[in-house]
Amino acid sequence: MSDAKDHCGLIGVYGCEDAAERVYYGLYSLQHRGEESAGIASTNGKDIICHKGMGLVSEAIKPDMLKSLKNPVAIGHVRYSTIGSNNIGNAQPLLVDYYKGKVAVAHNGQLTNAKRLREEFEANGSIFHTTSDTEVIVHLMAKPLHMMQKSLSPVLSQLHGSFSLLFLTPDEMVGVRDPHGFKPLALGKLNHGYVMASETCALDQVGAEYIRDINPGEAVYVSKNGIQSEYYCPQRQIKPAFCIFELIYFSRPDSKIYGESVHLFRKRLGAKLAEESPVDADVVISVPEGGNSAAIGYSHASGIPIDRGFIRNHYVGRTFILPEQERRHRVVELKLNPLRETVEGKRVIVIDDSIVRGTTSKSRIGLLRRAGAKEIHLKISCPPHRYPCYYGIDFQHKGELIAAHHTIEEIRKFLNVESLSYLSIDAMMSCTTQSQERFCNACFTSRYPTPIEENTKKLVEREVVREISKVN
Amino acid sequence: MSDAKDHCGLIGVYGCEDAAERVYYGLYSLQHRGEESAGIASTNGKDIICHKGMGLVSEAIKPDMLKSLKNPVAIGHVRYSTIGSNNIGNAQPLLVDYYKGKVAVAHNGQLTNAKRLREEFEANGSIFHTTSDTEVIVHLMAKPLHMMQKSLSPVLSQLHGSFSLLFLTPDEMVGVRDPHGFKPLALGKLNHGYVMASETCALDQVGAEYIRDINPGEAVYVSKNGIQSEYYCPQRQIKPAFCIFELIYFSRPDSKIYGESVHLFRKRLGAKLAEESPVDADVVISVPEGGNSAAIGYSHASGIPIDRGFIRNHYVGRTFILPEQERRHRVVELKLNPLRETVEGKRVIVIDDSIVRGTTSKSRIGLLRRAGAKEIHLKISCPPHRYPCYYGIDFQHKGELIAAHHTIEEIRKFLNVESLSYLSIDAMMSCTTQSQERFCNACFTSRYPTPIEENTKKLVEREVVREISKVN
Amino acid sequence: MSDAKDHCGLIGVYGCEDAAERVYYGLYSLQHRGEESAGIASTNGKDIICHKGMGLVSEAIKPDMLKSLKNPVAIGHVRYSTIGSNNIGNAQPLLVDYYKGKVAVAHNGQLTNAKRLREEFEANGSIFHTTSDTEVIVHLMAKPLHMMQKSLSPVLSQLHGSFSLLFLTPDEMVGVRDPHGFKPLALGKLNHGYVMASETCALDQVGAEYIRDINPGEAVYVSKNGIQSEYYCPQRQIKPAFCIFELIYFSRPDSKIYGESVHLFRKRLGAKLAEESPVDADVVISVPEGGNSAAIGYSHASGIPIDRGFIRNHYVGRTFILPEQERRHRVVELKLNPLRETVEGKRVIVIDDSIVRGTTSKSRIGLLRRAGAKEIHLKISCPPHRYPCYYGIDFQHKGELIAAHHTIEEIRKFLNVESLSYLSIDAMMSCTTQSQERFCNACFTSRYPTPIEENTKKLVEREVVREISKVN
Amino acid sequence: MSDAKDHCGLIGVYGCEDAAERVYYGLYSLQHRGEESAGIASTNGKDIICHKGMGLVSEAIKPDMLKSLKNPVAIGHVRYSTIGSNNIGNAQPLLVDYYKGKVAVAHNGQLTNAKRLREEFEANGSIFHTTSDTEVIVHLMAKPLHMMQKSLSPVLSQLHGSFSLLFLTPDEMVGVRDPHGFKPLALGKLNHGYVMASETCALDQVGAEYIRDINPGEAVYVSKNGIQSEYYCPQRQIKPAFCIFELIYFSRPDSKIYGESVHLFRKRLGAKLAEESPVDADVVISVPEGGNSAAIGYSHASGIPIDRGFIRNHYVGRTFILPEQERRHRVVELKLNPLRETVEGKRVIVIDDSIVRGTTSKSRIGLLRRAGAKEIHLKISCPPHRYPCYYGIDFQHKGELIAAHHTIEEIRKFLNVESLSYLSIDAMMSCTTQSQERFCNACFTSRYPTPIEENTKKLVEREVVREISKVN
Repeated sequence: MSDAKDHCGLIGVYGCEDAAERVYYGLYSLQHRGEESAGIASTNGKDIICHKGMGLVSEAIKPDMLKSLKNPVAIGHVRYSTIGSNNIGNAQPLLVDYYKGKVAVAHNGQLTNAKRLREEFEANGSIFHTTSDTEVIVHLMAKPLHMMQKSLSPVLSQLHGSFSLLFLTPDEMVGVRDPHGFKPLALGKLNHGYVMASETCALDQVGAEYIRDINPGEAVYVSKNGIQSEYYCPQRQIKPAFCIFELIYFSRPDSKIYGESVHLFRKRLGAKLAEESPVDADVVISVPEGGNSAAIGYSHASGIPIDRGFIRNHYVGRTFILPEQERRHRVVELKLNPLRETVEGKRVIVIDDSIVRGTTSKSRIGLLRRAGAKEIHLKISCPPHRYPCYYGIDFQHKGELIAAHHTIEEIRKFLNVESLSYLSIDAMMSCTTQSQERFCNACFTSRYPTPIEENTKKLVEREVVREISKVN
Repeated sequence: MSDAKDHCGLIGVYGCEDAAERVYYGLYSLQHRGEESAGIASTNGKDIICHKGMGLVSEAIKPDMLKSLKNPVAIGHVRYSTIGSNNIGNAQPLLVDYYKGKVAVAHNGQLTNAKRLREEFEANGSIFHTTSDTEVIVHLMAKPLHMMQKSLSPVLSQLHGSFSLLFLTPDEMVGVRDPHGFKPLALGKLNHGYVMASETCALDQVGAEYIRDINPGEAVYVSKNGIQSEYYCPQRQIKPAFCIFELIYFSRPDSKIYGESVHLFRKRLGAKLAEESPVDADVVISVPEGGNSAAIGYSHASGIPIDRGFIRNHYVGRTFILPEQERRHRVVELKLNPLRETVEGKRVIVIDDSIVRGTTSKSRIGLLRRAGAKEIHLKISCPPHRYPCYYGIDFQHKGELIAAHHTIEEIRKFLNVESLSYLSIDAMMSCTTQSQERFCNACFTSRYPTPIEENTKKLVEREVVREISKVN
Repeated sequence: MSDAKDHCGLIGVYGCEDAAERVYYGLYSLQHRGEESAGIASTNGKDIICHKGMGLVSEAIKPDMLKSLKNPVAIGHVRYSTIGSNNIGNAQPLLVDYYKGKVAVAHNGQLTNAKRLREEFEANGSIFHTTSDTEVIVHLMAKPLHMMQKSLSPVLSQLHGSFSLLFLTPDEMVGVRDPHGFKPLALGKLNHGYVMASETCALDQVGAEYIRDINPGEAVYVSKNGIQSEYYCPQRQIKPAFCIFELIYFSRPDSKIYGESVHLFRKRLGAKLAEESPVDADVVISVPEGGNSAAIGYSHASGIPIDRGFIRNHYVGRTFILPEQERRHRVVELKLNPLRETVEGKRVIVIDDSIVRGTTSKSRIGLLRRAGAKEIHLKISCPPHRYPCYYGIDFQHKGELIAAHHTIEEIRKFLNVESLSYLSIDAMMSCTTQSQERFCNACFTSRYPTPIEENTKKLVEREVVREISKVN
Repeated sequence: MSDAKDHCGLIGVYGCEDAAERVYYGLYSLQHRGEESAGIASTNGKDIICHKGMGLVSEAIKPDMLKSLKNPVAIGHVRYSTIGSNNIGNAQPLLVDYYKGKVAVAHNGQLTNAKRLREEFEANGSIFHTTSDTEVIVHLMAKPLHMMQKSLSPVLSQLHGSFSLLFLTPDEMVGVRDPHGFKPLALGKLNHGYVMASETCALDQVGAEYIRDINPGEAVYVSKNGIQSEYYCPQRQIKPAFCIFELIYFSRPDSKIYGESVHLFRKRLGAKLAEESPVDADVVISVPEGGNSAAIGYSHASGIPIDRGFIRNHYVGRTFILPEQERRHRVVELKLNPLRETVEGKRVIVIDDSIVRGTTSKSRIGLLRRAGAKEIHLKISCPPHRYPCYYGIDFQHKGELIAAHHTIEEIRKFLNVESLSYLSIDAMMSCTTQSQERFCNACFTSRYPTPIEENTKKLVEREVVREISKVN
């Protein structure tokens, strides 16, 4: 039930006659990572051309353009823009002209020093055409000093925060992950070429085989000379801090993220929930789509049978806009209809992936109640969200994180359920198959893996406050 | 996996200030019944206005138009058009002017004597503006003899075949089912008004409470004088023959059809499958969306755990068009991605709702095999389709019904599965909670409940032959 | 300055491989006769297809469709719809299916007995899909009695009022003028084929040579058997009554209408003005476009030099919509800018083709005054409009005909000009090169050439009254 | 008949509540100066917002956006883009972010040192987002040295070539003309505010009163402190060289350009033609629109009566595209239809404003001949074009300037006219009311008022050669 949104999805294909078309289909697989704009840049080894537009992939890019395009290298991007900046100028890939020629960049993440870098550039006479923090990267690349280098190291080593990046020049495609590896980026093999993508479901889509992830602090260069790896920062700066929320919420269940199967991870979350907060009930249901995998885990672990509790209307999409507040409730109902036959007169366990503001959850619980549920036990497959994310997840724009200001008992009363359980932090962390140290869970714990510049902190907090005051 | 398509969905709202807007949201709930065009006609008691267009509800009708519309009565229609006639002229409701004033008609079904009636009218000087068989109904209404009547009986008694109808005049809304009740039509109460809709999920959507179905051979008139029921044909002609395929395939699981819960019916189909063709296996998966309910039934009955075997890409919709044959395979993959973690090295039971041509099924089975499934046992929650439908389901246009020309063993080999089971006719029929005599299952048994005129038969068969020759 | 609008323009091409494309360009030449919708119907000898849409030809019809269309016969239509009926359903050609097959009809004019005929048809069970009076024509054609005839005579002889018609069937193209010949229709030769069009400028456009007009009461059939003429009514009913306003206002100056050169006719109007109301002045200017030809005639006759007084902005078209009343003045200025150099300090004679309501004229006179004109002598190249037209010109919808309710001196004061002159009726009629008896000038004289049915009269008058009350 | 195109039109409004809306209507008046894109930037004193799009003003900008916009300052731009660069990225005003904040720039003209400046910036690490030479201006503004200045002098003094500019910052609007004043820019007063525009017809449109031109080498700053003038370069560098072609061809007849009435200037051209190359004839006609004013001058001077020789179809606009070569001829006919009544059997003098390639002229002369003209005497109201323009007129892209390679007698034969006369350079220059030294007539004389950098020269010449080789 979370409305948290990731900032982007990336895919690049190198060495394949219909690279642009494959990127196009790959973006379909990554569409859940960004619905506001989509773009594809491709090169024939000489020039780079870029198609981009607002909206879903199907709206933003005409497949006709791509079919005739025989460029063997292409990168693509889908974007979720934060409030106030959803304009075509900020759509990516960002294509610019500088002394060395053209370069296109696609970025997933958030730079924590973008504001400061930008001010320095502007003070030296640079001009910015977008409000995106990605533009500082190309300004760094254009610095005369940096231009003399073959490597991107001097540029990348100046970036702070989270960034998975794809670069496209007429000669090569480069994939980069920040030294913490906040955001995922996978590498695959496709015939004689290579593919890099935010999630492995996009590799499946384009027919590529998963090899490994790009590592934290690594830049992988693909060119006619083959594939080359470079670590652009000292080893001591490389400290994995993979975003755990990718596994809990953002990624598709059929993806491997950080080498973990998302579906299996979520099933384990569900099983842990059954272990930590067992309850006697008749049936387990999930709130589609987010709770589906955890509900199966819960059912298997508890022995309580799973059934369908909501039917989702697949025709209610992003474009369904009902701006007036009074109609919000109707839209919630339009998307999910409860199955009376499943819940009537039953003690029902409901599995969901998160509660942000609480209003959507309240509305759906109400539907179940009206459909006759006797008892409702709501179980959330992660701990309460209490802290802002400075690495690219806009919890902050979603206003009041209900768990930041209320006890669980207060939330239970607000939602009007018989019981409400969150997963504990320890239980959640135990569901990974690798060292727990390699993850960032700051939104639950406030243990931020990097220092946050004071003005970034303020920027984010001010927005939270503003949002909260809007709500109240 | 069926590509069979129903012909329409209907909804009407009487006595509600925002009737047109409710019909609009109701059509969203019925969208799965027809994606080619959508329309809404509404009246203020004096004039009738009609908005319609091609495509999904969200494309065909602008909600802006409706918001300002304070007409208290409206009917709506979504349509799936057969090949060659998908033009705006055939979109419904059909609004015409005749001696008594304006009338709008919305039709779900197929008249088996439309061609003959049309020829008679044309020979007498009538002019047709559409190629839809619905237009003969308004010509019948315009006959001077019929116009003198208060009742629709003289008109309705001349129609053969399947028809659930909604009529809208400035004075009243009328809902009708044919004497066999081939197609569903439910009646609900909404505050001081009434709602009629093809499925009860649309009643849920608009906030109405289900009362009962319109009965076979019944016309229900709603006006300022309240609600009145009329049986427009002699009792002996009323012989229920409800389309069983509505329960198996067309309707939404959260609907009640003919008073049956679709979800429970399908769970029983799954349980019967487990009983009729048990197999030792590790996991039960479904082919979304169609197999979901039956798979739960199968799992519960067999004790074999259910898990997610495919992840559906919700962004791949109707508008996704890849005209070139060579790319068909890629689209199948784009919609469903297999979950390797669920099936790898496992003996997998796959539950699906139907096999029509077999090619789509074959492609998806291939995906599972490549994802590492050790054994695949495909189970279909209905018997093989072998006969054409003359009442509105265009199996015929879908070409070769694979089961009409091949043995089950041949199909099993074609699909390359370890075992293939269909449900028996008896088992299927035993899943209803009412007398089996009340259903039409002619597409499985060839027991057609009405005589079929020779030229209709030929028309349909010619199309089947044509389609088959295209395929081979 | 008149806002009176004709009802349509017609063109048909027979026997030319790119008939539809020629019709398309021909409609461009006739665009001034109707800007609300455009359509083309064409046949390959078997089927008829029809493309039509709202707006200008360039908006309504995609030339791509036509380029690939190798049908050798096509008819086209542009339409100006009266208020309240500007919908796509009323766009023409009207294409229908009846017992004999398909027929497309295009109509210029107004039937004075359409309402009565329609009521008779409806009483007999016919259904109407449009609100256009043209639809009664196809209902007449579909009458079993009429269908047995080869000729259109039985149909045409029942129509009253004004009608120039083009019919298209798979076999032939037919051009018709009513017995009074109210509306023009010219016949031309194009290589081995024939062209019929409302104005000869369209013949020029498609490369055809003008032969003669279709005569009043004549139907000309073009088929593979060549061209055949038929007079469909008794000779005594044929009484030419050509609309004089076609020559004064509607038609393009480069057309021949009723065999008269429009440009020369208007130059004679201007010369007569110089003769009837001479005035001492420094310069003659026209209000473009309408006054251009008459101004040349005035200048030549009077010896007073002509100059450009207004510059027209060619980018201000039909689509320029400023709905708010307060902005009307600004739009007038946007279309025509006065040339200060021509009028400053001068005694200026201004030639215009008409004054309807007076407000537009007043605004433009104001522009000249502010540009420094010392004296303004406004001369109108026709007499004052005082009576409604029942044959297809919607003066009536334009509300208050200022001359119907005010003396010329009152109008002069309202417009604030030094002098105002209209042409006399006798002078106007003397400008034709044929017998004055052959023209209808009822809008100036109230001498209607046909009886007007009482309910038509009332209909029109009610609208005038309604419009007037809106204005006041 | 010229296809030469200017590069832009500018308008700015300061101090008027509906500034953006006035700019919008003002752009309608300047539309003839650029049909490829249009844009408006406006400020409320804090932020600047910019609307722009491809196509005509009516297509590019939605008036709805502007109506609600209460910003008191706005600038607008229409653009004619040269081949290969007609993309939205190059549409103006160009809005950028730099150290001092936001600035929007609109440019009419062509910088002759843009390529060199751009290379210098890129070598120093700057990034360009457009291919327009206007972007170097904002890079100059962003130079730290320049930013410390209040004045634009340091920036403007580095620009070579032709430039009329409008700048918009949250605080002020600035209008600039280059030291030669190649392109016009007029200053007007509107209530308590100011307007600057390329032509005075736009001042008329927005209701402003013409005060004077911005002078060559002058920058005029308008802010809440009022209006301030600054000469940004030494007096000795200011050498007026007004483009004479603005008077002959580009500007609207109802504009004052460089203080000259365009209409009167053209009438004098016509009168000089009558003096230099008299011929005995029956009638004078013009090729609309360009020849209209000169034809009046010719008629008045010669005493030979003027009449209408062509009727222009106002519905044939920019959007009329017939890509296939074979159809070019048809489009020419579609735009202008000859008036047989005027020319048949007559000796006709035809006045046109230019001949570029000769093909269009030849086609139109052919129309007159077929309409029966006995003799055709073509008179061009300027001398032959023989040299490229480096200041913003793309004769070069229009390929073979026929007069650059052929004698007048050769052209006469090619056009098939009885006589062909151009105006002499001396006669043309004598038509101005000010010193002839103040004009640039290099396209006729090759006397370029500035040195042209060698690489600019080559660039232009290469294009000419390329175009010529395409033609042959």
